[in-house]
Amino acid sequence: MQEFEIIKDYFSKLSNQNQASLKLNDDVFFEKNKKMAISTDTYVEGIHFLNFNRPELVIKKIIRSSISDLICKGVKPKYYFISVAGHKFVFSKANLKKISRSLSQEQKKYKILLCGGDTVFSKKLTLTITSIGFSKKIVLRNQAKLFDDIYTTGNLGDSYMGLQILKKKIRLNKNLEKYFIKKYYLPEIQLNLSQKLLNFANTAMDISDGLVTDLEKLINNQKFSYKLYLDDIPISSNLNKVLVSRNFLKKDFISNGDDYQILFTSNSNKNKMILRIAKSLGIKITKIGKICSAKEKSLIIDKNQNKVEIKNKGFIHHF
Amino acid sequence: MQEFEIIKDYFSKLSNQNQASLKLNDDVFFEKNKKMAISTDTYVEGIHFLNFNRPELVIKKIIRSSISDLICKGVKPKYYFISVAGHKFVFSKANLKKISRSLSQEQKKYKILLCGGDTVFSKKLTLTITSIGFSKKIVLRNQAKLFDDIYTTGNLGDSYMGLQILKKKIRLNKNLEKYFIKKYYLPEIQLNLSQKLLNFANTAMDISDGLVTDLEKLINNQKFSYKLYLDDIPISSNLNKVLVSRNFLKKDFISNGDDYQILFTSNSNKNKMILRIAKSLGIKITKIGKICSAKEKSLIIDKNQNKVEIKNKGFIHHF
Repeated sequence: MQEFEIIKDYFSKLSNQNQASLKLNDDVFFEKNKKMAISTDTYVEGIHFLNFNRPELVIKKIIRSSISDLICKGVKPKYYFISVAGHKFVFSKANLKKISRSLSQEQKKYKILLCGGDTVFSKKLTLTITSIGFSKKIVLRNQAKLFDDIYTTGNLGDSYMGLQILKKKIRLNKNLEKYFIKKYYLPEIQLNLSQKLLNFANTAMDISDGLVTDLEKLINNQKFSYKLYLDDIPISSNLNKVLVSRNFLKKDFISNGDDYQILFTSNSNKNKMILRIAKSLGIKITKIGKICSAKEKSLIIDKNQNKVEIKNKGFIHHF
Repeated sequence: MQEFEIIKDYFSKLSNQNQASLKLNDDVFFEKNKKMAISTDTYVEGIHFLNFNRPELVIKKIIRSSISDLICKGVKPKYYFISVAGHKFVFSKANLKKISRSLSQEQKKYKILLCGGDTVFSKKLTLTITSIGFSKKIVLRNQAKLFDDIYTTGNLGDSYMGLQILKKKIRLNKNLEKYFIKKYYLPEIQLNLSQKLLNFANTAMDISDGLVTDLEKLINNQKFSYKLYLDDIPISSNLNKVLVSRNFLKKDFISNGDDYQILFTSNSNKNKMILRIAKSLGIKITKIGKICSAKEKSLIIDKNQNKVEIKNKGFIHHF
């Protein structure tokens, strides 16, 4: 079973009376009265991060992953809670010092504040971050309109390349390895763009599991299809360099998770506004596709209009 | 290291700028502007609950444990989030059905609503519950006054006896076993008393780790000592029966965790009010000790004024 099936079949009815929770159909909860959004995510060693050898980086990665869930919806994060279930070596003084320093740096960078949490013993390292933010409005899932353009911020695939290097499946020169590993651990979250989204995005989420998987989640309750233009999907010049020199295929690197860029759709009459805002903020925003009628099939196409098959669309939680 | 040392040494500075978070010195976070309290707790199989053989009971136990953190402070819980990191057998249809039904029953009983969560794969079952409630005021830790009386609601020790039975360390007749096991899995949370606490309690918390451990946490930042009257500590007639028939000592059963009763202190001039409220709600509330000057030593004494040594004061998180 996939996570969304579990939610639909067993849990959505538990929030039925509650308009605010959107029947668990979004990954954040928005409380209209308090104008408050909450997101909670659990990270398991070996699944959501490789290992805890570099706690100072893992902590930053998961904090960013958590606040990204709010930021991609136009909500400014303010508070966070961190619960750690781990072996006692996780709570060594050296590790605690690193964790504390990393949290402090993230707090300054993103203007967030630790408000609580829990530390418990477990043989398997599991961290849960709950982030809370405030906003009058929020950009939700499943609010795309027919013929909306599909956009992504930043570049995709760098983080996945970083993971391949960490797993020693791909080896590159030292500088390139450093570049990609940094992208894996320290995704740049688009905090400055966040509240602007409310001006033009009909629907939005962050790309955490992989572009195609996440796009399908973004519109999973809507009777639409999508078209994605493979050649327009933005990648870094470093990633492009590696793809060319190793004969790797772009399609194998742009939908594999951990990007933490914002995926959104918008009416095409907002295109100029989007480009202007992107320029003024110094952020890359790229049009990569279109929302289409359900009569058509969802497709990924290249510049010659040929259909591209992507085997692995992203990380899907199966049980 | 103990959890409170970890917090003091490494994390309290991260919430320094933030008055509302009480420097992480409480187990709930209170946001004054929104009049909102949040508590987050992580539960690991084999540590916080024995196993997941009866998911329908474990789920109720941890939901009650989580909302108890708010209720014991005068805050009415309204929303909860549940994150489950578990093996795929945890997410079997039979288990999901049981979990969903239990949550639904708890929602009705305590008027709470599921708002989100996360399901991820892990070899070690770990659940995190975040509860959110609203209240104009909150009863905090470390607000005891000198010479306050110390009270507890309900009876202590039943749940610990239930755990000993589940662990097969103690065997009793079927009916008694059933009674104590029920107390272990389904603690009665004092929802009706909750908001009344604001009228008389100077400081309060729930007894989750054990009476003495938790009392020491309740006043850990205050320059006070305490006196506890062993013979006044309330136990059920069933527990008393077992203690007598097996020659068990009361002191070995009243400070071992999982009670989820409310421990609070109050000025002695509130005693009549407390008894009146207890009577009108049909709740047992018992005076069990006194807050004393730091010049005296913290003591547990019996009715002959003899000092009682308790070896195991409760469950302490060590790393």
